[in-house]
Amino acid sequence: MSGSSVSSICNSLSADPEEPIERAKKAAAFACGEAYIRNGQKIGVGSGSTVKYFVEFLKERYQTGKLKDIVCVPTSFMTRKWLLDANLPVSTLEQHYVLDIDIDGADEVDAKLNLIKGGGGCLTQEKIVQSCAKKFIVIADDKKKSKQLGENYKNIPIEVVPAAYVPVKKWIEELLGGECTLRIASTKCSPLITDNGNYILQWDFPKDAADRDWKTTNQMIRELPGVVETGLFLNVVEKVYLATHDGKIEVLEN
Amino acid sequence: MSGSSVSSICNSLSADPEEPIERAKKAAAFACGEAYIRNGQKIGVGSGSTVKYFVEFLKERYQTGKLKDIVCVPTSFMTRKWLLDANLPVSTLEQHYVLDIDIDGADEVDAKLNLIKGGGGCLTQEKIVQSCAKKFIVIADDKKKSKQLGENYKNIPIEVVPAAYVPVKKWIEELLGGECTLRIASTKCSPLITDNGNYILQWDFPKDAADRDWKTTNQMIRELPGVVETGLFLNVVEKVYLATHDGKIEVLEN
Amino acid sequence: MSGSSVSSICNSLSADPEEPIERAKKAAAFACGEAYIRNGQKIGVGSGSTVKYFVEFLKERYQTGKLKDIVCVPTSFMTRKWLLDANLPVSTLEQHYVLDIDIDGADEVDAKLNLIKGGGGCLTQEKIVQSCAKKFIVIADDKKKSKQLGENYKNIPIEVVPAAYVPVKKWIEELLGGECTLRIASTKCSPLITDNGNYILQWDFPKDAADRDWKTTNQMIRELPGVVETGLFLNVVEKVYLATHDGKIEVLEN
Amino acid sequence: MSGSSVSSICNSLSADPEEPIERAKKAAAFACGEAYIRNGQKIGVGSGSTVKYFVEFLKERYQTGKLKDIVCVPTSFMTRKWLLDANLPVSTLEQHYVLDIDIDGADEVDAKLNLIKGGGGCLTQEKIVQSCAKKFIVIADDKKKSKQLGENYKNIPIEVVPAAYVPVKKWIEELLGGECTLRIASTKCSPLITDNGNYILQWDFPKDAADRDWKTTNQMIRELPGVVETGLFLNVVEKVYLATHDGKIEVLEN
Repeated sequence: MSGSSVSSICNSLSADPEEPIERAKKAAAFACGEAYIRNGQKIGVGSGSTVKYFVEFLKERYQTGKLKDIVCVPTSFMTRKWLLDANLPVSTLEQHYVLDIDIDGADEVDAKLNLIKGGGGCLTQEKIVQSCAKKFIVIADDKKKSKQLGENYKNIPIEVVPAAYVPVKKWIEELLGGECTLRIASTKCSPLITDNGNYILQWDFPKDAADRDWKTTNQMIRELPGVVETGLFLNVVEKVYLATHDGKIEVLEN
Repeated sequence: MSGSSVSSICNSLSADPEEPIERAKKAAAFACGEAYIRNGQKIGVGSGSTVKYFVEFLKERYQTGKLKDIVCVPTSFMTRKWLLDANLPVSTLEQHYVLDIDIDGADEVDAKLNLIKGGGGCLTQEKIVQSCAKKFIVIADDKKKSKQLGENYKNIPIEVVPAAYVPVKKWIEELLGGECTLRIASTKCSPLITDNGNYILQWDFPKDAADRDWKTTNQMIRELPGVVETGLFLNVVEKVYLATHDGKIEVLEN
Repeated sequence: MSGSSVSSICNSLSADPEEPIERAKKAAAFACGEAYIRNGQKIGVGSGSTVKYFVEFLKERYQTGKLKDIVCVPTSFMTRKWLLDANLPVSTLEQHYVLDIDIDGADEVDAKLNLIKGGGGCLTQEKIVQSCAKKFIVIADDKKKSKQLGENYKNIPIEVVPAAYVPVKKWIEELLGGECTLRIASTKCSPLITDNGNYILQWDFPKDAADRDWKTTNQMIRELPGVVETGLFLNVVEKVYLATHDGKIEVLEN
Repeated sequence: MSGSSVSSICNSLSADPEEPIERAKKAAAFACGEAYIRNGQKIGVGSGSTVKYFVEFLKERYQTGKLKDIVCVPTSFMTRKWLLDANLPVSTLEQHYVLDIDIDGADEVDAKLNLIKGGGGCLTQEKIVQSCAKKFIVIADDKKKSKQLGENYKNIPIEVVPAAYVPVKKWIEELLGGECTLRIASTKCSPLITDNGNYILQWDFPKDAADRDWKTTNQMIRELPGVVETGLFLNVVEKVYLATHDGKIEVLEN
């Protein structure tokens, strides 16, 4: 399968590259790449529309010989496709379980650089790859920025073993309030099935707590039998490159 | 989990029940039920918005005691939910591999009562359940009607083992022309994963053949290693109940 | 499929029912049933050769009308088969997420009634069903008894997402010592795949610690990204019915 | 993960390399490699103990620079491991859907060079890879040789979608006689689950037919809804290298 036909598999991330936000996303991805990517690195490569520009960065540097001896470990089917299309060296955690850096997107970034991820359904792969990496950098557009988690992205995605989706839903609602719904695959009115064969519960959590203790919340959810992973990425981000809608880059760090 | 909370899992099939087409779909489902459903039957129950009205029919008759000793075998997660919510007796092909009748929808019905199915992604389950049934009746709205397959629904869904999606795509394109694309899960820009853990190729077939030999075409596809099932249901329909957009029922049979 | 042909699916649990240990296992299962099973209960039914006698108990009481209105939720394919063959009412956690009691086996029971489970590969289902139950009772033969975990059963089964099996192996070995190996399916020299589509790591843990803090150990493992569940069942057993090799029953409780 | 620790994942294929049959298997694998493997080839690499020696052949030639620019596409988890351990270039059918040659083992080879495969559970991957290859060569020991299929290996493995295992069992028994049983995973008394998430039916076919028409038989099975693949490889073998128990090589061709 030639590169060109491969990339036609998914056009859903296409956007007008001349729009300010797209130029800013590309600039943010390239600035992140310039700052962090070096020869010989093993690189986790996340998912989403900003990460696509980061793959462009890798491709440009690798093809011109400016970047050498790298290994890329993708977090999703689509990212692997992009990397293969770009003729970049793709591998897995089976072969490389220590990564120098992981670059990924986010669905929300709060003031403490805590994240909600999982809008794309690949939260478990993304969490595993992030956990294998020495550094974790986020690239995203500035709509993802908030003061507190839940301002923009309204729920926490939670990957669950299919047999447990009802008990886990009930346990979370009883323990923590709010409501869990099963994420449905739009084309089939069946549950969305993750790459791991699981379901995703979307926890619409109570927004009243001015300052929720997310670490404890996450542990409580994570310990429930049947829960595979949550979309909460807490205290793991080193820096965030945000593309702003007026075409600039904003950098956040703790 | 109470019935009411279960049914809230998926509202995507909701529509205004007072619209003429919805009244006609309900009337078609009920007419089909009146004509074919009897006490003691083992009933395959398909998927989709018209089938939802058929579940209403079953519920109404079963609750009032007019219908007894039935067993329902659903073709999808959502249909199973509807049946459980309605307190109807649900089973599987593991326990009942001979069904008296199967009632299902379709994405297209041609003049010979051949079908394209699989828009909802459950084609393999639907084909297996249909093959266990002595009679197969279709209920749908009249937009699904065509002279030849492909007039309304533009492609044939084909379920494939993930490892084979590229070879199968190429083999079909070389053998039969047209183009195969991978069905993508809208929420994640990953391939849609079926309940069987497989992918779906959508074959946009050449529309020039005035009268394609679908039986041979289907056999050629079905014999390719890696192909699990196709959305072609050929020569298996006994009768079709169509809901028309002016609120009536049209019955097709060979 | 008639009951008799169904049960022929698996004869691997067959044993001479006249041997003292088999008579004791049956006696233990029946004593447990007598003590705990009541009309109207929702009952988790575990896996393994002693549980098979518990299914016999349920069948005998249910068929004679002494036991009524029960619902059985099995933890494995084979147990579901046994229950269906016995014409007992089988359901799932999707419909009944609160169970009155769960009866299951174990691969090892220590002096504090902590368990290792997962020799049969169904640890995640077993943990989920146990967590839905108000009481949890173990039935087993006395070879499973030990002072400390690891005396008889040498490793802890850990279910992991396939993409994470190498990182999780490394993390556990670095954090906690010992060695993790991948459980292989004997007939194919491929990893054994669980009912959830995952792999099982077998952690051969350091046996030097006189009194390991299993709760902390379990939490450390369970928090690793990619870990779905462990075979450690800690502080959840109410009572253990042990069949002894001289044909008697020993009851353990805290 | 270093090569050495990876290979320790599975020792079940270990055997005394000094036994005559093992020396013959190695000689057969190397003779096949000498005769067929060339620079620049894309090579399907099958599964099993004789194929392990073929991986040794590839490693030896590749490391010494005698063999260049090859790509290896494995048919199973374990073969992929062997290839990665040997630092050979590993790829997938997603990237290379046309292979120059496929070298694989077999569970039985009859006088017409028809095969039964699937004892290891990877029949679907093996069939797909074989179908992508221009040439297909078998390497095995001479115990696999027979006059007619069924003399040594008593059943035909058939991979089926889990939801269909009972109907398919019944359909085959009614259409073709014999008996189908579900392959059980020895460690868990659950069905063995293939890499594709399916079950395997083992069809113990009637052995009375002096000369069964396997092509028709295979088509009849393959057309049943729910059947993913069979272990019959008919009329696709170019040559067979057999290792004999007195330490020699026998070559079969039509």
